[in-house]
Amino acid sequence: MEKIGVGLLGLGTVGWGVYQAFHHRQQVITKKTNRLFEIRKVLVKDVERPRQNRDVFPLLTDDFSEVLDEEVQVIIEAIGGVEPARRYIEEAIMAGCHVVTANKELIAKHGVSLEQLAHRHGVKLLYEASVAGGIPILGTIRHLLQTNHIHRITGILNGTTNFLLTEMEKKGVSYEEGIAVAQELGYAEADPSNDVDGVDSMYKLAILTRLAFEVTLPFQKIPYKGIRGIKVGELILAKKLGYAVKLLAEVGRETNQDTVSLRVAPMLVPLSHPLATVEGVYNGVHIEADGVQDITLLGQGAGTEPTASVMLEDVCNLFLLPPPMVQDEPEAVILPEEPFGERFIYMEFVETIDEEVGQQMQTRLEKIGLPLIKMEAITLPEGGGVALLFEQWNPIYQGILLAEIGIEVKRMLDRPIYQQASNHAETQRFKKIG
Amino acid sequence: MEKIGVGLLGLGTVGWGVYQAFHHRQQVITKKTNRLFEIRKVLVKDVERPRQNRDVFPLLTDDFSEVLDEEVQVIIEAIGGVEPARRYIEEAIMAGCHVVTANKELIAKHGVSLEQLAHRHGVKLLYEASVAGGIPILGTIRHLLQTNHIHRITGILNGTTNFLLTEMEKKGVSYEEGIAVAQELGYAEADPSNDVDGVDSMYKLAILTRLAFEVTLPFQKIPYKGIRGIKVGELILAKKLGYAVKLLAEVGRETNQDTVSLRVAPMLVPLSHPLATVEGVYNGVHIEADGVQDITLLGQGAGTEPTASVMLEDVCNLFLLPPPMVQDEPEAVILPEEPFGERFIYMEFVETIDEEVGQQMQTRLEKIGLPLIKMEAITLPEGGGVALLFEQWNPIYQGILLAEIGIEVKRMLDRPIYQQASNHAETQRFKKIG
Repeated sequence: MEKIGVGLLGLGTVGWGVYQAFHHRQQVITKKTNRLFEIRKVLVKDVERPRQNRDVFPLLTDDFSEVLDEEVQVIIEAIGGVEPARRYIEEAIMAGCHVVTANKELIAKHGVSLEQLAHRHGVKLLYEASVAGGIPILGTIRHLLQTNHIHRITGILNGTTNFLLTEMEKKGVSYEEGIAVAQELGYAEADPSNDVDGVDSMYKLAILTRLAFEVTLPFQKIPYKGIRGIKVGELILAKKLGYAVKLLAEVGRETNQDTVSLRVAPMLVPLSHPLATVEGVYNGVHIEADGVQDITLLGQGAGTEPTASVMLEDVCNLFLLPPPMVQDEPEAVILPEEPFGERFIYMEFVETIDEEVGQQMQTRLEKIGLPLIKMEAITLPEGGGVALLFEQWNPIYQGILLAEIGIEVKRMLDRPIYQQASNHAETQRFKKIG
Repeated sequence: MEKIGVGLLGLGTVGWGVYQAFHHRQQVITKKTNRLFEIRKVLVKDVERPRQNRDVFPLLTDDFSEVLDEEVQVIIEAIGGVEPARRYIEEAIMAGCHVVTANKELIAKHGVSLEQLAHRHGVKLLYEASVAGGIPILGTIRHLLQTNHIHRITGILNGTTNFLLTEMEKKGVSYEEGIAVAQELGYAEADPSNDVDGVDSMYKLAILTRLAFEVTLPFQKIPYKGIRGIKVGELILAKKLGYAVKLLAEVGRETNQDTVSLRVAPMLVPLSHPLATVEGVYNGVHIEADGVQDITLLGQGAGTEPTASVMLEDVCNLFLLPPPMVQDEPEAVILPEEPFGERFIYMEFVETIDEEVGQQMQTRLEKIGLPLIKMEAITLPEGGGVALLFEQWNPIYQGILLAEIGIEVKRMLDRPIYQQASNHAETQRFKKIG
């Protein structure tokens, strides 16, 4: 039986999970691949640091060249960040090693050049764990939806912010309190900026877009917005109106294959949509395509075991599944975000407003002819607010609203409403099949 | 470029969808497989019958041997039922053809012998479309969760019954009215027995079990129960108690690999569970495994386009993905259904009972010491009823209940409650990863 030498870079939470998983799953990996995998070197910063498991000590090194000096055919990168991960991966590829990584920042920024390098050296680079944790979304797109023309992908791709939103909505805690709980449980880092500002979701969206739409992406141009400082009142009000506030990463493609519109933003998702039911640290991805119509995948967005498990699946699939296609992909033209469409406008006032004042406002807005769907007045401990749902939103309405309300607006919030695709299939195309 | 001849068996709803999809997707199939596919013969019962598309006429034949006489390397079976589909597939395999089918009854009953035959003849047999329509569940289990040890699979696998339950619950229509609507829309056949009695779900569960647990299955022994004649009152009451009634197909494996317990039955699913949100003709599959913890896949359960699309993915994957493993799989020992566990007991009375009588009953049951979680009295147009949720259910309680109630029970209903797995990962195993 062929023996495969493995070099593991990093022994943090993910690296340690991979190390353990390799030992627990030795038997099934061998059975599925008909190969014997063996971790031969583990790269760490500090070889002296005390560690849970003494067996790992003889494998430790702080010198990357020592990893490549061993007979290794596979490098598993579990360091994170761009450098030195990028340099190590490049050197590994040039030395003829396959690479498996969970590094979303690296793949979002340098995935194209790394894949081309791997292709030139006849090796593979797999990164299933970089998007949506335990959900095998990249494999599904690559191998199980390959003849489908994908129209749109919408995802909850960041477990930290989803946990925070769930915590706030369910328990009524503030943003700051929610962050503290998330940090305590290990779901948020000391500096949660990358998660709460939408950067992490944006990296993952960039990777998904490239795979699903076969375009390269000037990812610096992806518009993203996070949920920093979001108020619990907004979440409660949205629910009252029939929506869940979710940090969505969304990409759609027009019939022209090279034109995409994409964004990361907190959006209102109708409660009947599967993505609205994604709670806590779970992630969800909703795909609309011409063949299967729509499918949704839900699962844990992060965590040691799901991540390590997905990386192990990648390691097996280095030897089982066909390599990713590498071709000259056109650079996508990113369309500006559509300024029109259903919007949720939420205004907070310096003074609490009651139902009656709300009614008066509604009458006035209807008189002006703004395409209002719904309006709800709300009184919160910290003040009053009012929510308006517009069928069509035009930025010029903002000035009209301010001029027409006549009471001082403390804060005005503008959120897009997720547009549920009309389900043609259910009403028109379905025929009973045998 | 290699040319691949295709023989299509059947030109009903699915066959016609496949025929069209081949033409619409010619370009992408060629690109992905680097092969040129060409439908060379189409087997139909009546070659003279008028058809939508005249181009197909030169390809028609009513003689299967004529299909094999052409240069065909792939047979797509879209006839349904066991015979003559089985005979055709066997002949095709023996003539060296790969086979793609959506035929769940055939695969549930004869999948093992057909796969062994295919293996002996060096060809592949794929049947992704046989389970859960547009959801690529078999491919996910085979290729993307291969190192995971799967503990349990729970699915809504029949779109017809799910549509019926949704229609009844949302619109308050009766079972009979719901069936009539489903038939009118083409979601139910003139004789809906196979769907409403759970046979269709049982076939699909048998296929899923074999793939996920690598055991053969005496599928005649799978216990199944359907939803024939279900009352709308039960659905409304269940919702009031925080549950959705769903026809679930469920299989779990004990640590001993050859021992499984499985069943198809209407069960109460907590409203917070993703499967409770599956509405209309959608299907859903929930997988619990040691690595990824749990993932859920949702999508359309049937329909021409999803089915044809999935069959086309199979056709491509005949040439792209590694063949299914064929080995001597042990026959599973099917455990009898666990008589204990959370149960929902619903009793309808000849006379309407009011809240007060309900309260008296509750007091009496508590005195006897039955492990009651919750009790709700309900008054429906057609009479009164009462629902009891038990923490633990023992069949002997039934006699005690009848003896203790003291008013005439018209109908008594006993449904299992779906046991949500406690989410260890969320509370214990999660660590923030980079």
